[in-house]
Amino acid sequence: MTEASEPTTLIRADGRTADQLREVTIERGWSEHAEGSALISFGRTKVLCTASFTNGVPRWMNGKGKGWVTAEYAMLPRATNSRNDRESVKGRIGGRTHEISRLIGRSLRAVVDTKGLGENTIQIDCDVLQADGGTRTAAITGAYVALADAIEWARDKKFVGLRARPLIDTVSAVSVGIIDGTPMLDLAYVEDVRAETDMNVVATGRGLFVEVQGTAEGAPFDRRELDSLLDLALAGTAELTRIQELVLAQAIAAAGE
Amino acid sequence: MTEASEPTTLIRADGRTADQLREVTIERGWSEHAEGSALISFGRTKVLCTASFTNGVPRWMNGKGKGWVTAEYAMLPRATNSRNDRESVKGRIGGRTHEISRLIGRSLRAVVDTKGLGENTIQIDCDVLQADGGTRTAAITGAYVALADAIEWARDKKFVGLRARPLIDTVSAVSVGIIDGTPMLDLAYVEDVRAETDMNVVATGRGLFVEVQGTAEGAPFDRRELDSLLDLALAGTAELTRIQELVLAQAIAAAGE
Amino acid sequence: MTEASEPTTLIRADGRTADQLREVTIERGWSEHAEGSALISFGRTKVLCTASFTNGVPRWMNGKGKGWVTAEYAMLPRATNSRNDRESVKGRIGGRTHEISRLIGRSLRAVVDTKGLGENTIQIDCDVLQADGGTRTAAITGAYVALADAIEWARDKKFVGLRARPLIDTVSAVSVGIIDGTPMLDLAYVEDVRAETDMNVVATGRGLFVEVQGTAEGAPFDRRELDSLLDLALAGTAELTRIQELVLAQAIAAAGE
Amino acid sequence: MTEASEPTTLIRADGRTADQLREVTIERGWSEHAEGSALISFGRTKVLCTASFTNGVPRWMNGKGKGWVTAEYAMLPRATNSRNDRESVKGRIGGRTHEISRLIGRSLRAVVDTKGLGENTIQIDCDVLQADGGTRTAAITGAYVALADAIEWARDKKFVGLRARPLIDTVSAVSVGIIDGTPMLDLAYVEDVRAETDMNVVATGRGLFVEVQGTAEGAPFDRRELDSLLDLALAGTAELTRIQELVLAQAIAAAGE
Amino acid sequence: MTEASEPTTLIRADGRTADQLREVTIERGWSEHAEGSALISFGRTKVLCTASFTNGVPRWMNGKGKGWVTAEYAMLPRATNSRNDRESVKGRIGGRTHEISRLIGRSLRAVVDTKGLGENTIQIDCDVLQADGGTRTAAITGAYVALADAIEWARDKKFVGLRARPLIDTVSAVSVGIIDGTPMLDLAYVEDVRAETDMNVVATGRGLFVEVQGTAEGAPFDRRELDSLLDLALAGTAELTRIQELVLAQAIAAAGE
Amino acid sequence: MTEASEPTTLIRADGRTADQLREVTIERGWSEHAEGSALISFGRTKVLCTASFTNGVPRWMNGKGKGWVTAEYAMLPRATNSRNDRESVKGRIGGRTHEISRLIGRSLRAVVDTKGLGENTIQIDCDVLQADGGTRTAAITGAYVALADAIEWARDKKFVGLRARPLIDTVSAVSVGIIDGTPMLDLAYVEDVRAETDMNVVATGRGLFVEVQGTAEGAPFDRRELDSLLDLALAGTAELTRIQELVLAQAIAAAGE
Repeated sequence: MTEASEPTTLIRADGRTADQLREVTIERGWSEHAEGSALISFGRTKVLCTASFTNGVPRWMNGKGKGWVTAEYAMLPRATNSRNDRESVKGRIGGRTHEISRLIGRSLRAVVDTKGLGENTIQIDCDVLQADGGTRTAAITGAYVALADAIEWARDKKFVGLRARPLIDTVSAVSVGIIDGTPMLDLAYVEDVRAETDMNVVATGRGLFVEVQGTAEGAPFDRRELDSLLDLALAGTAELTRIQELVLAQAIAAAGE
Repeated sequence: MTEASEPTTLIRADGRTADQLREVTIERGWSEHAEGSALISFGRTKVLCTASFTNGVPRWMNGKGKGWVTAEYAMLPRATNSRNDRESVKGRIGGRTHEISRLIGRSLRAVVDTKGLGENTIQIDCDVLQADGGTRTAAITGAYVALADAIEWARDKKFVGLRARPLIDTVSAVSVGIIDGTPMLDLAYVEDVRAETDMNVVATGRGLFVEVQGTAEGAPFDRRELDSLLDLALAGTAELTRIQELVLAQAIAAAGE
Repeated sequence: MTEASEPTTLIRADGRTADQLREVTIERGWSEHAEGSALISFGRTKVLCTASFTNGVPRWMNGKGKGWVTAEYAMLPRATNSRNDRESVKGRIGGRTHEISRLIGRSLRAVVDTKGLGENTIQIDCDVLQADGGTRTAAITGAYVALADAIEWARDKKFVGLRARPLIDTVSAVSVGIIDGTPMLDLAYVEDVRAETDMNVVATGRGLFVEVQGTAEGAPFDRRELDSLLDLALAGTAELTRIQELVLAQAIAAAGE
Repeated sequence: MTEASEPTTLIRADGRTADQLREVTIERGWSEHAEGSALISFGRTKVLCTASFTNGVPRWMNGKGKGWVTAEYAMLPRATNSRNDRESVKGRIGGRTHEISRLIGRSLRAVVDTKGLGENTIQIDCDVLQADGGTRTAAITGAYVALADAIEWARDKKFVGLRARPLIDTVSAVSVGIIDGTPMLDLAYVEDVRAETDMNVVATGRGLFVEVQGTAEGAPFDRRELDSLLDLALAGTAELTRIQELVLAQAIAAAGE
Repeated sequence: MTEASEPTTLIRADGRTADQLREVTIERGWSEHAEGSALISFGRTKVLCTASFTNGVPRWMNGKGKGWVTAEYAMLPRATNSRNDRESVKGRIGGRTHEISRLIGRSLRAVVDTKGLGENTIQIDCDVLQADGGTRTAAITGAYVALADAIEWARDKKFVGLRARPLIDTVSAVSVGIIDGTPMLDLAYVEDVRAETDMNVVATGRGLFVEVQGTAEGAPFDRRELDSLLDLALAGTAELTRIQELVLAQAIAAAGE
Repeated sequence: MTEASEPTTLIRADGRTADQLREVTIERGWSEHAEGSALISFGRTKVLCTASFTNGVPRWMNGKGKGWVTAEYAMLPRATNSRNDRESVKGRIGGRTHEISRLIGRSLRAVVDTKGLGENTIQIDCDVLQADGGTRTAAITGAYVALADAIEWARDKKFVGLRARPLIDTVSAVSVGIIDGTPMLDLAYVEDVRAETDMNVVATGRGLFVEVQGTAEGAPFDRRELDSLLDLALAGTAELTRIQELVLAQAIAAAGE
């Protein structure tokens, strides 16, 4: 995203301009077991995304001729600067975890033609190995790559009911926020805690919105601010779409071998 | 909301126009125990909102001279058309409940000057007695009334640290969605399940955004659709603000007596 | 209960005589979703009772040609004077809740001919919206009304196996206690905490006992005290039976419409 | 209980008359660790009762100069004829367990002068090693013996605040029920499942009631039946009181040595 | 074990020599309900072991023509010197309990020909009534006796698929440890806490190892120490095998009668 | 481990000889947040080990002048060939997880002089990113590296109470097993499932045993087999010790920067 969508001379703590993504890397096929997988980094944020393809659907979906995509998100206890207790040890999943898991699942389902999947299930797991802001947006962006590879794997295996093109679009996500009055793209953790307004945008490769979640952390925001954040976010997801396409265009050693 | 913000001749199942709220009623001071309370109806959706004011704050906030506002949302098992198992019986709280509880808490905190609260806590409880779509938006709108009354109660009791004006604005919420291509305000349950895009908007009395949560349930949506939904929502929250002000202007028998 | 069963001139805090019930109101068909429902008040105690009628029985009862009636009781967190944590948040149901749920279920089953129900299940939910003593007795009394309406609803729908008269009697409940040596009927909360002996009596419309649960909260009690409490209680349940019959004799808009 | 309180010629499955207890044995000081303990048998029902005496009280009782007595009841998985899953494995305690634990605690507290205990806690544990009906009544009867020994132990150790006579009475419990129209004392399991009415009575050594819990398992019962059950129960608890006194009069090797 | 395997003049707190077991007693058929049972004592350690024989296997083993043996271990709350909270009350099973349950199950399965069992399940329960060190080894040793009796019971009942000899060996267990440099057999609790190295050895009647679990509690141990502990343990399990055989050779009243 | 401890010509599925470790790599300082960290691989098994150093100890250790080292082990859901449900979702931790967490903690404490740590806590987290047998032994081996770095970090920060040499030895672990009668070192998953006997050995850099856990998965094993497994394991841990030393001798960018 070298061409800035808004002229700005502000330089951020890590040297970026306001409309610049952090360095994004996607290590496709990281897992030797999963049908699709990607280790994605947004700067120092690292998320391992796996897609597990299994035949059959949950009982409540039986016989409808549709597939199912669902997701779970979690963080390693020391992914963050100070350690968090494990949710397995606490015996329950927190609200934030639930919220993000549901967001990832909805985001992916928005680009899947579930009839085209046949009665098969894809379980996405996004585990944050290291966190520095934007874990949910990195998770969605990486999960799409894992999902695409798992579907490709299943097509190679000729799974029953799976059609030629169950993916109807691509999907990626990015955070934006207003800091000291300036809209900024892809917030790192130190920026996230300072943002007055924080928004996560999930968009398709065609530039349509899947989710828009804006929150006034500090002061409520007006329509003009909302508009500038949406502009910034769509430019960011367009860039992420290009990176996803590049990565998926490369050959990969068959997963699960 | 008699003046339609967009010309439309479409009539909904319940006889409303696309830009019309359901009948809203707020029974203030419903609870004889809580420091503030409101039984709010958006049509057939009924939510009992109570505000419990207590001295002191959670341990992690001690000594910061700030107050705390938090919220919990729940639904009675037969609030809905078919019965849902109780979360207490299942032994865990679902993701949806968590998500909405957090949303209500954030929405209220956005209009509270926590320093003005002193080291006091207000616990909001929103229990859905009957559900017909829009339970979270009704909950936020009613919770604001309960919150305002609880603060008034505490000011009467001259709680330590409580300032003259801890509420810096009012807050209300409404759902909007696109059904068969038409943006509609305040969706009833039958409309909600059919909506292609569903958005909950939380806004202040001054017309600023606190939360914007748009989700493509069916197909992703474009910028123009997003804009028309935001217009509709802001008109709806403006109407809800007027109703809140009207209700709060009336005298009420002192709560907790 | 205008005729006192024992001469007494004592006047209670709320102006009642020792053998007088609080004002009882039953709002039948309160819920627009449930097959039967009643919002019952014993003075300031308010309990929402719903009856959910579903075809089929739990697996362990399959094929016995019998129906099943079960109940769950719960309290909203701010139903009481100071707020209680939600059992869903604590992740477990307390002993008191369990105890009362079981009592309600047993009390209703005592007047149901389960063979007459056919293989259908009625799930009763009693949610205390506001508590001022006697919540379990109000719950049983209101639940009977919801149960009767749910059965009537199912008979209209001609459910398989449902006979003409699955209800073999009516059932209601009341608390009694000894305060400062005087037996009193239908204790409000401030009386309940002062009672030396506290008893809940569940009885049928014909005046037979379903449950007798007497507890020495302060000092153990003798046979004579027990007898006077039972007299008082039976007079109270007779009065409640009359109120139930009155309410059920009225026409009601069909539930679930 | 050789002298029958009501003339009867009926002989039960185990050869008893209607008003006869099963053989009762109490092995005092069974545990080498607990401050008081008793292994009690009511026929084939065997319950190990321990009393753990510790200095201090729960936080909510601090500084009131009173002690605390509480109880927990549980059953070994194969105490019964077919195995039950462990509540620790299920991760939650069932309603029945809660109900009985609370009953035991209340029954013991009824004969304890908590001021006389000083700020000390006695935790009673009743674990059913083998069940054949009447486990809760055997538990209460045995727990009293363990409690008395734990208090004696603490008096020997001269615990602060403990007075000369913190026990103001003794307590025991027995079940009664109506089977084929005949009231019977101390039901074995095969009798319990056949009883139309089932009652547990907790009474003090002086013959006063602590708890009366009567339940119509089959048909509701009338006042005359209730009276005959109470007569039978009081004769039973009088006999149990004699056995408790006999056992406590014997010397015992100091517990916890 | 009169012949010492190593010359030693050291006398332990309870008067034993270093290579001497505590007194072992096995009360076979203790439970009147279980298909096999044994109350075993290693000195003051007492464990009630029951074996529940049921037709059928867990779903994941269906149709393989094999049986299943599994075990659960638990401790009564006051089995120990100071009371432990119940795992059912805490709502979860601790690591130590899990570990020992798994060890008992593996140890028993090592001597069972699961094909010889037919598709039947034996559930072992080992409940520690009193603890003084070595509860897991006593549990394994007693559980073998309960298991053998349950199999015998099932052979009498001619269960389908059960062969003549599903037990291919016997199994017992003992603890050993190094205290002040001296290897010792069958540690009591006061010895266990002082041991530098602690080892549990499970061995068959033929003297083969099933499990060897050695842990350096204090300082790591060398090969020579390991060897001396293994010698001591094998002598101990040989002695336990003789006791098991003696007990099983006696006639017993049929269990479950 | 070029010099084979036993002559063997057998070649394994992955081309190794019986006494050969898989390729071991240790990526030290993998985490930018943790005070010490290592991503360790034993072949395809990959475990991320972090050490979190915090001031203070658990309450029960307060004031003893000692530090505390504890560990938690977990597996990502798709670390294995087929997906496992998350323990956080199931709401409880399984026995295997508990067992391994405890093993890791004990193994590390065996080489730590807790007095030398001062009243500080080191929390080790071992998360298996990919599993192919030997996850617990890789975890211990990698955790030692993370632990050593966290202590070094704390010494740089001059934490109160931390002495010059709190580590009194190094520690590593390896699995050994007997397959088709041949003892083999460092089993991969396909070997592990076939092993008749399976042993995990934890040993110090000086060659002393910390833990020896041998289990007869198939047939019980004799003393000679046990001895050959111990020989093999000690050669393996000696090799792992050399690798740890090599890695720790290298300079590393300061963690937590």
